Amino acid sequence: MREYSGLLTDLYELTMAAGYLQTRFDARATFELFVRHLPPHRNYLVAAGLEPALEFLEKVRFTLDEIDYLRRHPTFRNIRDDFFDYLRDFRFTGDAWAMPEGTLAFAGEPLLRVTAPIIEGQIMETYLLATLSFQTMIASKAARVVTAAEGRHVVEFGARRAHGPEAGLSAARASSIGGAVGTSNVLAGQKFDMATYGTQAHSWVMAHEDEKEAFAHFLDAFPEHAVLLLDTYDVRSAVKKIIEMGRKPAGVRIDSGDLAEDSRWIRKTLDRAGWNHVSVFASGDIDEYKITALLKKGARIDAFGVGTALATPGDAPHLNLVYKLVEVERAGKIQGAAKLSAAKVTYPGRKQVFRFSDASGNWAGDRIVLEDEPAHDGLPLLVPVMKDGRRLIPKAPVSEARDRCLAGLARLPQKYKQITRPARYPVNVSHRLEDMLEKVRRRVTGKLSKTRR
Amino acid sequence: MREYSGLLTDLYELTMAAGYLQTRFDARATFELFVRHLPPHRNYLVAAGLEPALEFLEKVRFTLDEIDYLRRHPTFRNIRDDFFDYLRDFRFTGDAWAMPEGTLAFAGEPLLRVTAPIIEGQIMETYLLATLSFQTMIASKAARVVTAAEGRHVVEFGARRAHGPEAGLSAARASSIGGAVGTSNVLAGQKFDMATYGTQAHSWVMAHEDEKEAFAHFLDAFPEHAVLLLDTYDVRSAVKKIIEMGRKPAGVRIDSGDLAEDSRWIRKTLDRAGWNHVSVFASGDIDEYKITALLKKGARIDAFGVGTALATPGDAPHLNLVYKLVEVERAGKIQGAAKLSAAKVTYPGRKQVFRFSDASGNWAGDRIVLEDEPAHDGLPLLVPVMKDGRRLIPKAPVSEARDRCLAGLARLPQKYKQITRPARYPVNVSHRLEDMLEKVRRRVTGKLSKTRR
Repeated sequence: MREYSGLLTDLYELTMAAGYLQTRFDARATFELFVRHLPPHRNYLVAAGLEPALEFLEKVRFTLDEIDYLRRHPTFRNIRDDFFDYLRDFRFTGDAWAMPEGTLAFAGEPLLRVTAPIIEGQIMETYLLATLSFQTMIASKAARVVTAAEGRHVVEFGARRAHGPEAGLSAARASSIGGAVGTSNVLAGQKFDMATYGTQAHSWVMAHEDEKEAFAHFLDAFPEHAVLLLDTYDVRSAVKKIIEMGRKPAGVRIDSGDLAEDSRWIRKTLDRAGWNHVSVFASGDIDEYKITALLKKGARIDAFGVGTALATPGDAPHLNLVYKLVEVERAGKIQGAAKLSAAKVTYPGRKQVFRFSDASGNWAGDRIVLEDEPAHDGLPLLVPVMKDGRRLIPKAPVSEARDRCLAGLARLPQKYKQITRPARYPVNVSHRLEDMLEKVRRRVTGKLSKTRR
Repeated sequence: MREYSGLLTDLYELTMAAGYLQTRFDARATFELFVRHLPPHRNYLVAAGLEPALEFLEKVRFTLDEIDYLRRHPTFRNIRDDFFDYLRDFRFTGDAWAMPEGTLAFAGEPLLRVTAPIIEGQIMETYLLATLSFQTMIASKAARVVTAAEGRHVVEFGARRAHGPEAGLSAARASSIGGAVGTSNVLAGQKFDMATYGTQAHSWVMAHEDEKEAFAHFLDAFPEHAVLLLDTYDVRSAVKKIIEMGRKPAGVRIDSGDLAEDSRWIRKTLDRAGWNHVSVFASGDIDEYKITALLKKGARIDAFGVGTALATPGDAPHLNLVYKLVEVERAGKIQGAAKLSAAKVTYPGRKQVFRFSDASGNWAGDRIVLEDEPAHDGLPLLVPVMKDGRRLIPKAPVSEARDRCLAGLARLPQKYKQITRPARYPVNVSHRLEDMLEKVRRRVTGKLSKTRR
């Protein structure tokens, strides 16, 4: 796959591009990317995916091959050469404002705002949605898992459950933004400078003559780092065997069975052998609900390996981000744009979000406003990140976004972040935004009534 | 992302590799990839993802940079240079048998069987699982959506909902294998030679002065191909406007509202205008359940655009494929391998699957057997696809897998493929497999008891 291909888009973005050129429709447009409602079981989002999005905006191009493919596409049969010439010279030249990665976000709040010639803004839609949706979804899930683990380590183990290898890399990255300490994904470790973790698989044990040989060989190879897997045949007899061998591993892992009871038994047995520093890892369909239940039952687990839940969460498997036109500037006239169909109303105008704290510095609520409204004592969440197609902020390490997320969560009162039945964090919309929506409604429905006459 | 990077794996695959080399453990192993149970709401799977998997097996390498990264990794601190030398020359040299893409598959049936030096087979695990899991999950979902549409066209619209751009490409490909007629994803169209479809977005309508200008401009640009979107403001007044303009579009699309009632009204109104050939497209959170309900309510829809459901299905968001060691050949001795932990028993030995038909040629049931058992009149589903690291089958077009899937579905009796409450397709396991599992159990538990003494 060409990573910065202009064809990484839906066909209608290109038909609209051709249509705008063909009809000489010249406009500058602003699009905002946000969720209308939080998904079930989510009370906040953790913004993620901006870094790869900015990279794409800077590097996206159409190759001659790709343009030739479009030239032969039946849809573009009657389209003038202007369109193909345009694509040959295509660059994204717009501006962008965004919430830095790791920022907590809520429904209705733009994570990203793009202002550009309308064709450019339109072609970018598909890539921006896919990238920010997925990484924000995973970072948000990771923050919940990490919150549930109450200081115990969470390691992302999802590479094999991700939607292909690239999704695995993004899941590792986003999990780290949400607070995971590392990943099992080696390429993610290299690419994003993340800590990587790994133990041994059941196959290692099964391939050897017996567990004793399997454990001994692994300890021979990794005298300091061996984490031995206990549940290939029988957890307790595996522990006894290791202790009989008298060779202390760095840790042990359980991947099935009653993790609460087994972990308590393992801890007690290891401690009795004087092995207080041998860590207990748990994996096997772990998520925030299971961690909460395990801790309630007194599980003695030092670190959780979380796979499926951080690759493709089952309790909220999609984050319906939208990318909506909110303003058009055409022939010198600036006009707010809004969708008015019953269930899908959107607010027009370029927006900013302010976050307010209470006296003790905790987050108290957000207000969505038009970009030129005064901040009072609110913290503006959207910052300029791109001007005329060039980045304004340097590439930041993932750890910076992670620190931002953890600092943000620390200021979010407990009632908003509990795993089940959290309170609803207050977000309101400014009067000027409400007025502007009404104005657009009157303009459009006025026209609708004229048509009906 | 380097597409054929050896680092596209979990760290433990590499620690095991280093461990096998370090302890001079020399074995040839067979791994099988299958699901233990079908996910909820799934009664069959459609095998997909083999093509990219074979490509990876042929091309995977470790670069010097990547090896250097591992050399500096704390886990490999005490590992001899043999390991890094091994990675430098790494090639996959094994054999593979697989179900061709588009084959219907059931729980317990291997989709892929890999026999290779144990280190090679192990390192490939993560990539193979991620690739076959995702594409099989999507192809299986697509087959359900296509079945529900009863001959109406299904187009994959999920690029923006996929887990990143690469997942979008794979979803388009897998949807096509499951029977979709095409995709909105332009790069998928180019890469996989698939038909691409696109209409216009709400933003096109919102950017124009009014709907009339918006429709007129689009018809100017695409006189033969314009599909006009009706629900930006009000569906019925949009239809009236288009008819008043007297310019017949290729089709219309509705994306929200009461799709059943609106589509009936639209069809009647278009027909009354003499526009019987103008197609009605529907999109907006479409899946097999919604299609079934719409058709029951008499919806008049010619084609469905399906996004989220074909990118990240909510009713069964993960397919828990596993990749299990089933046989080890070490020092001339071949031994079956099995996992015996309570909930996760697997059968040892290299397997084949036979599919049996009834007198009228319909599928009657499957039998999972050891590879050398006689076929009787069953159709063997696993075929050799790779020998000594070289492909045995040429790269096939996606359409071939799609044809295989549709032919397979045509032979699957209705009771097994209905959308809700399908009957359970019969799959059994040969006596020789059961015997072999018992043998492994006796061998391993014999050893367990010895330890306990």
